Amino acid sequence: MTPHTTGDSAYVQSLARGLSVITSFDADRRRQSLTQVAENTGLARATARRFLHTLVGLGYAGTDGTEFWLTPRILELGYSYVSSQELPDISQPHMESLSATLGESSSLSVLDGTDVVYIGRVPVRRIMSVNINIGTRFPAHATSMGRTLLAGLPPDELDDYFAAAELTALTSETADSQAELRQAIATVADVGYSVVDQELEPGLRSVAAPIVDSAGRTVAAINVSTHTAGYTLETLQRHVIPAVRQAARDISSDYISTQHL
Amino acid sequence: MTPHTTGDSAYVQSLARGLSVITSFDADRRRQSLTQVAENTGLARATARRFLHTLVGLGYAGTDGTEFWLTPRILELGYSYVSSQELPDISQPHMESLSATLGESSSLSVLDGTDVVYIGRVPVRRIMSVNINIGTRFPAHATSMGRTLLAGLPPDELDDYFAAAELTALTSETADSQAELRQAIATVADVGYSVVDQELEPGLRSVAAPIVDSAGRTVAAINVSTHTAGYTLETLQRHVIPAVRQAARDISSDYISTQHL
Repeated sequence: MTPHTTGDSAYVQSLARGLSVITSFDADRRRQSLTQVAENTGLARATARRFLHTLVGLGYAGTDGTEFWLTPRILELGYSYVSSQELPDISQPHMESLSATLGESSSLSVLDGTDVVYIGRVPVRRIMSVNINIGTRFPAHATSMGRTLLAGLPPDELDDYFAAAELTALTSETADSQAELRQAIATVADVGYSVVDQELEPGLRSVAAPIVDSAGRTVAAINVSTHTAGYTLETLQRHVIPAVRQAARDISSDYISTQHL
Repeated sequence: MTPHTTGDSAYVQSLARGLSVITSFDADRRRQSLTQVAENTGLARATARRFLHTLVGLGYAGTDGTEFWLTPRILELGYSYVSSQELPDISQPHMESLSATLGESSSLSVLDGTDVVYIGRVPVRRIMSVNINIGTRFPAHATSMGRTLLAGLPPDELDDYFAAAELTALTSETADSQAELRQAIATVADVGYSVVDQELEPGLRSVAAPIVDSAGRTVAAINVSTHTAGYTLETLQRHVIPAVRQAARDISSDYISTQHL
């Protein structure tokens, strides 16, 4: 067994390792043995065992002696983030009435690296192949909220984004060249909303608009997702886009009021 | 400065401390200085600084040099739990149609210690004074889902619950004696659903039913919340209770099918 190092690096390492043990659990790994956790995190068995037993002791994991699983207490960690954000709270009633009016699910997201991350959601009916929860991530370039958020970035941060992003084509429709995307993002900045048509998933059309602060900076985006079979492009133009833009303006206005308190 | 200890206890301590830094952020502490984090976690400033910079380095926190905040990457941790659970995924479409039929929000929860924790939610309109997200906790004794989950516990675990629970009266209606609650829980076990009338919050009436596995064990509960002004008790009896029970049976049936795969 290697000796434990001490000092700053030890702290960094043990917290990072502990968090990697948590994130090693997912839909394909709901319950894991010690051996599986060690394999999936790259940790030595003895190290993985200490972290797992630490998590069990803290109530963040459970075990039957053979397998380990996460407990709902883990949600405290993500909840610390959600409850520390004003926007999900401010947006929720506006998203609820938007969803009720259109009969479609709406979502709130922010940019994290090259992904959009959902921080609010009013589900009405599932039209995507995956279930979307708070914390779900999608590549920004293929989503209406992502393009809206990218359109709000200063030029140098947009360059950083393109330097880091993998512009994968998720469907035959996905714009996956930098030139196409820069054009699409410029259009979003110009018109103030984004429509993405089957670039994330076939049959899915989504409309997004930005939430802005008092300085006009984009801090988040909301969207409504529709099934291509449900709305014609004309109905989308006439009803969905104005409704999403109005909800985004209402949320921005409420957000700006709280900033001035 | 005290020397760092090594071995098992050091690992336990540094992971526990790192997680306590994360949970020190909430709605009242969206942004914290180093001094505030040290005060709120009970850690020495030097220790708090190491953990904060570790979280910044891992992308779980941000800083402007003076204040620290959590980033949406933190949601990965809670998302590890949600995506490792089958029930939120299985329940979502049933909860969506239940909410659409009744025009009311529905939720899915499990027991964690003496609390119910929300692991799924279809919000329709807000009728509670607090916004409910995945990860929100309420004391089990005052909620319909809590009593449904308690009614599913084996007798020794129910005794453990009463030994640990603080039976606080949250409104003038809350049953807050062990005798009253044991009677209420026995009734829930008997009839197969729970109605809680303004015991969590004035004006709020909630109906819950259990999700069971193939052995008949209660693994979760769903509910629908209604405003007292919206439904008479008779409508609740005639429409809401049967709809919630049917949705719970449908979810249980889907859950049992996946267990047999």
